[in-house]
Amino acid sequence: MFRVNEDYLKLPGSYLFSTIAKKVSAFTEANPDKKIIRLGIGDVTQPIAPKIIESLHNSVDEMAHAETFHGYAPDLGYDFLRNVIAEHDYKRIGADISADEIFVSDGAKSDSGSIQEIFAHDSKIAVCDPVYPVYVDTNVMAGRTGVYDAATGKWSNVIYMPCTLENNFVPELPTETPDIIYLCFPNNPTGTTLTKEQLQVWVDYANKVGAVIIYDAAYEAYITEENVCHSIYECEGARTCAIEIRSFSKNAGFTGLRLGFTVIPKDIKSGDVTLHSLWARRHGTKFNGAPYIIQRAGEAVYSAEGQAQIKEQIAYYMNNAKIIKAGLESVGYKTVGGVNAPYIWLKTPDNMTSWDFFDYLLEKANVVGTPGSGFGPSGEGYFRLTAFGSYENTVEAIERIKKL
Amino acid sequence: MFRVNEDYLKLPGSYLFSTIAKKVSAFTEANPDKKIIRLGIGDVTQPIAPKIIESLHNSVDEMAHAETFHGYAPDLGYDFLRNVIAEHDYKRIGADISADEIFVSDGAKSDSGSIQEIFAHDSKIAVCDPVYPVYVDTNVMAGRTGVYDAATGKWSNVIYMPCTLENNFVPELPTETPDIIYLCFPNNPTGTTLTKEQLQVWVDYANKVGAVIIYDAAYEAYITEENVCHSIYECEGARTCAIEIRSFSKNAGFTGLRLGFTVIPKDIKSGDVTLHSLWARRHGTKFNGAPYIIQRAGEAVYSAEGQAQIKEQIAYYMNNAKIIKAGLESVGYKTVGGVNAPYIWLKTPDNMTSWDFFDYLLEKANVVGTPGSGFGPSGEGYFRLTAFGSYENTVEAIERIKKL
Repeated sequence: MFRVNEDYLKLPGSYLFSTIAKKVSAFTEANPDKKIIRLGIGDVTQPIAPKIIESLHNSVDEMAHAETFHGYAPDLGYDFLRNVIAEHDYKRIGADISADEIFVSDGAKSDSGSIQEIFAHDSKIAVCDPVYPVYVDTNVMAGRTGVYDAATGKWSNVIYMPCTLENNFVPELPTETPDIIYLCFPNNPTGTTLTKEQLQVWVDYANKVGAVIIYDAAYEAYITEENVCHSIYECEGARTCAIEIRSFSKNAGFTGLRLGFTVIPKDIKSGDVTLHSLWARRHGTKFNGAPYIIQRAGEAVYSAEGQAQIKEQIAYYMNNAKIIKAGLESVGYKTVGGVNAPYIWLKTPDNMTSWDFFDYLLEKANVVGTPGSGFGPSGEGYFRLTAFGSYENTVEAIERIKKL
Repeated sequence: MFRVNEDYLKLPGSYLFSTIAKKVSAFTEANPDKKIIRLGIGDVTQPIAPKIIESLHNSVDEMAHAETFHGYAPDLGYDFLRNVIAEHDYKRIGADISADEIFVSDGAKSDSGSIQEIFAHDSKIAVCDPVYPVYVDTNVMAGRTGVYDAATGKWSNVIYMPCTLENNFVPELPTETPDIIYLCFPNNPTGTTLTKEQLQVWVDYANKVGAVIIYDAAYEAYITEENVCHSIYECEGARTCAIEIRSFSKNAGFTGLRLGFTVIPKDIKSGDVTLHSLWARRHGTKFNGAPYIIQRAGEAVYSAEGQAQIKEQIAYYMNNAKIIKAGLESVGYKTVGGVNAPYIWLKTPDNMTSWDFFDYLLEKANVVGTPGSGFGPSGEGYFRLTAFGSYENTVEAIERIKKL
């Protein structure tokens, strides 16, 4: 008689954004006349840039003729894309990463969810708290996280590193030694960053204790301040301890096109075994490459025209971020983020819980945000708004919130 | 100190097709003047059909404008695609499958590799032998398969069901009871099928012993004979025991576009838990949907024009299959397959091993095929040729083989 993976059953409730979608859907049904503005899920709204559209049309045409048709892609990605990534995202900023250390995929969510597979079953993970739910949930599904305590919202076998107003959202080195450390900077959900010196502390720590940092840099394109790393490989020693995950979703609007990549330097080893070789094996066995036309679209992102066009989009979203941040602060909200990231993280007023504030904002302002507690226990009492809406909607949402 | 997933290290050598690619590459370097014909890997060569190309261009244009832009897709697939699949692939042939039992993905390889995750860690799997390597390898990576015996090519904790000339490639019910049974018909690599009655035996068996059948139907479009099921749900009782995996790669040439789907009826339960709910949770946590434009391309496959165009392509490949089969048999090879599948499975001459025959064919005829032993121990002494080449190359390859 077959049995299921019991670890799946340990997951409390459903994925955060599914819950939000259900609440919004119920509200909309009950209030069909209200105009909802969504500043909740981190989905973009600007269309794909013209240069990338042109590339998509060209590669679609290639697929229409036997001479230029492309079947199975190389498991790890086409060289034309891996080369331009290595050049633009790494060599240009002095980071020592070669094209064959770059694994092209269908997105950062898939990669950040599956990367745990190549580690030992009893690995101990450390996460910032609050945190992108995928890191913890996928380790729950793999049976690594122990027992869930509904009262605290914590798993018994996970090291939580609180990031709150009290420590200025800079996680402290854990007292218990982890095997895997998930870091995401610029951070989702808080929108905060580390300085280069602060990130170097983590790289040094990981090398010292033999941990691997899984560095999610999906939001690096939003960095505006000096002295904030675009890549963890700007830190000395990162090649022996850090995996970096990148996305085309937030810098070029690929949420509906699906493209990302993971960098695994060949210097990360356990004995003779490189993590690079294990991830290559996983790609070769459980994945069949990202679509050719999407990889060509990714290449177009790096063209001069593509770069100019996506910079405009990022500036558009960051203008929204400024409007949200300034608007909220003008009526007394405490906020962080919004300077190097498209997320604004606010302290809920009057000690409201995150979900109470969610309901309040939905009902009174018809604005959808994301409850901080959905990202972990230290997110309780916080709330995330995103800058990915349209300018008009962002302005209107903030005006509504200011009037509450 | 971090450690790796030791189960990955148990995998002997590299993925079959990587090994072939390396051998061919070495031969090509040493013999730059020889024209290699590849009838090895199951990749298509015909371009994407015009109706599908038109759909791709249209949806690319949608992505260019904010009003019609599509961001994150629904985790489980767009309704427009799930509905047409349910209607065309199931309801039309009298199979009771609803749209919300269909999970759209980036391909059958990803799904057939990841589906094992939702089962208990100590589940026992049964596979046909020979078999598509992904089923076994992904269970190896999950630590389910015991110890590998290089002498026999078998894992200690896998039930092998030999399919050879001796049993006419019809697997016998195992004596030991499995939890999960992988079946692929029309079969890769042998190209053979089961009749409806023979498949019903498996459905009845699975229901009796409480096993789940993972039914890979990637090649169903190639079925030409009556009384061969296009879907396992044509069998009575399959809703309580069978998961079906389908692909757009082989019926519509999507190997480079990446689209597939998995069907999990809500009636497959362990206690109160449906496999449907677990797979939905996995999709929601580790996957972010197939690209919008690719899902629109999938929809176009089901249009009247799309259907007519892909039928022509399938007929083209099946004409190749006929040429291969007839050519081989005319010089005394024993073959199966090629009637309901694009694969021809031949017995190597003079008791050559599969890899010896691979080298022989590569060196003497400059034709690349796939060694049967790469698909499992009972594949030793067999060899796979595929019908996915161009007509001209197929004819030339067979002429070369006939002259050996």
